[in-house]
Amino acid sequence: MSSATDRFYGIIPAGGVGSRLWPLSRADAPKFLHDLTGSGRTLLRGTWERLVPLAGPERIMVVTGRAHRAAVEAQIPELHDRDIVLEAAPRDSTVAIGLAAAILHRREPDVIVGSFAADHVISDESAFRAAVVEAIEAADAGYIATIGIQPDEPAIGFGYIRCGAKLDIQGAPSALTVQSFVEKPDLPTAQAYLADGGYLWNGGMFIARADRLLEAIGEFDPELRAQLEELAAAWDDPASRGPAVDRLWPVLRKIAIDYAVAEPAAAAGRLAVVPGRFGWDDVGDFASVAKLKSGGRPSDLSIIGEHARVLADASSGIVVSQSERIISLIGVHDIVVVDTPDALLVTTTANAQRVKSVVDALKLSGRDDVL
Amino acid sequence: MSSATDRFYGIIPAGGVGSRLWPLSRADAPKFLHDLTGSGRTLLRGTWERLVPLAGPERIMVVTGRAHRAAVEAQIPELHDRDIVLEAAPRDSTVAIGLAAAILHRREPDVIVGSFAADHVISDESAFRAAVVEAIEAADAGYIATIGIQPDEPAIGFGYIRCGAKLDIQGAPSALTVQSFVEKPDLPTAQAYLADGGYLWNGGMFIARADRLLEAIGEFDPELRAQLEELAAAWDDPASRGPAVDRLWPVLRKIAIDYAVAEPAAAAGRLAVVPGRFGWDDVGDFASVAKLKSGGRPSDLSIIGEHARVLADASSGIVVSQSERIISLIGVHDIVVVDTPDALLVTTTANAQRVKSVVDALKLSGRDDVL
Repeated sequence: MSSATDRFYGIIPAGGVGSRLWPLSRADAPKFLHDLTGSGRTLLRGTWERLVPLAGPERIMVVTGRAHRAAVEAQIPELHDRDIVLEAAPRDSTVAIGLAAAILHRREPDVIVGSFAADHVISDESAFRAAVVEAIEAADAGYIATIGIQPDEPAIGFGYIRCGAKLDIQGAPSALTVQSFVEKPDLPTAQAYLADGGYLWNGGMFIARADRLLEAIGEFDPELRAQLEELAAAWDDPASRGPAVDRLWPVLRKIAIDYAVAEPAAAAGRLAVVPGRFGWDDVGDFASVAKLKSGGRPSDLSIIGEHARVLADASSGIVVSQSERIISLIGVHDIVVVDTPDALLVTTTANAQRVKSVVDALKLSGRDDVL
Repeated sequence: MSSATDRFYGIIPAGGVGSRLWPLSRADAPKFLHDLTGSGRTLLRGTWERLVPLAGPERIMVVTGRAHRAAVEAQIPELHDRDIVLEAAPRDSTVAIGLAAAILHRREPDVIVGSFAADHVISDESAFRAAVVEAIEAADAGYIATIGIQPDEPAIGFGYIRCGAKLDIQGAPSALTVQSFVEKPDLPTAQAYLADGGYLWNGGMFIARADRLLEAIGEFDPELRAQLEELAAAWDDPASRGPAVDRLWPVLRKIAIDYAVAEPAAAAGRLAVVPGRFGWDDVGDFASVAKLKSGGRPSDLSIIGEHARVLADASSGIVVSQSERIISLIGVHDIVVVDTPDALLVTTTANAQRVKSVVDALKLSGRDDVL
């Protein structure tokens, strides 16, 4: 039997518009297709390049919407056809990851899969790789493994993992059991978590043997598992795939993998968490973007946009420019200005989370043209 | 001899870009060509319509730059060719008003002229007309007359007029002498002026017999008077006007009429002020625009722009939109957003005066394309 890392296959679910990053992120230009850190590469490409040293370019699968196929292929020309799974419609993370796992499991029964969102940012990639390698070992030992990020501030925008006792897994010396997952806390609770030391951020990374993952889905929802297996069985046969998708996709249950797999596994003592000591952000809103871009210096004005022409006086925050218009800021602090061809957003970093409410309002008023 | 009001002729100097209203006001779209109050008419048209009941549409002259001829004629189709004076280049208010007065004086020796900036806003037009009628009578009595606006707050953006004793002029019962003009004060000084009660805002309106006005210019600068008279003598002769303009325009002295005429006249006891109890604003910056548009309610969000599509949540201030883009504001207070095709301004009402510094910076950096 080959080593666990040799059996590892990366899965990148590339879905989610990123409503709190409107009007930059859109249905036709979702968050993962943007370079939100000024690194010169999109978040998707960054995720891909982070996984290549772990899995190799031949063992990474991308799950995305049909509408994004061309954009994804442009970002990752190395991607083989067999490694792109196109969703007929969004069905949340259990379907995205579960279907990829089911397809890979049919091709390679002892595969270990690891799922990493296409739109997160990680710094210190060697620490990331070390954590993934431990998680792979924990997965090989039969656990559903996750990576929890060591918090460096009492963030209220992330969910937390409450860690339990140390596990004793060969090759995964830092793995712990998970007592529970906890939702995004308020600030006092987040401060208490930080002081306690026994809490990690839930980075939404799950590593497991594909067979174990499918079992876990099946324990939660046998029908959903059966549907995913049926899709997977048809997937690699060009004549069968289309009819199977047409029949099954409309009835697939939409549920986050946290609820379907991670929480039940934690409750059953079958979830392992490897603490990761690296910079991580889900870049959930423009306050995150500003913080990542400025390196956390709140007095800075961050500018994103290849052709941005910004003239600022006594101003801080972030400007995202998709035009060559002159953007002039005078005496505005912690400001967020996002200038796109058909929509302009002006808010503050403190209000960044509320951007989603604008998107909701636009939906309700039928202005889907700018969403 | 006809009555004084029958001899009245309005002059509208339509110059000045309005730098503090950038990027709305531009060299090719100056302040007076905008509807800054949402009234449905430009400031220039508003000025014209305010003067028609006083002078009639046949007795109002507009002085403007050559580049604005078409725009002015579009705003005032009633304007006769003989009532539009085109400046070869801006030469400040003494030339603009003095040349118009000299031309009108040649046509009609006993004319009484009154000059009213093209880019101010006045409410309560009947009170305005009553003040002008008194000022015309004071002018007929030989005074240089002005209208001072009764302050209703300690404004620091306007100059003030310090009033003296009551004058005893037939038909101008409220006219007072002027002790002095005072520059824009600081807040404590403005508060003291308001408490004193003897100070009025300098609205920059001057009414005088044309012969008296030209004498006053001649006392201040005999050469300038001679040049203006020479231009006026050539003006109504198509063969002479061009050569006279070419010869004289480049050497005309640039000076504000406040310095050349009003202050010396006040010092000599020949300036009369009629207090005006009407709403007046020179709409100097976007804070003024916001205040005028909201009627002074600071919690309001004012929106200017025929096709504006603004979606605002917990925001106040002003949005000026020249596009049909969605403009979304979230949690920004006293904000100023001015959205034009090639430039975007984001500032606050408190910083509205500083907009001029951006224009200066753009000039210095050679970005005249957006000025």
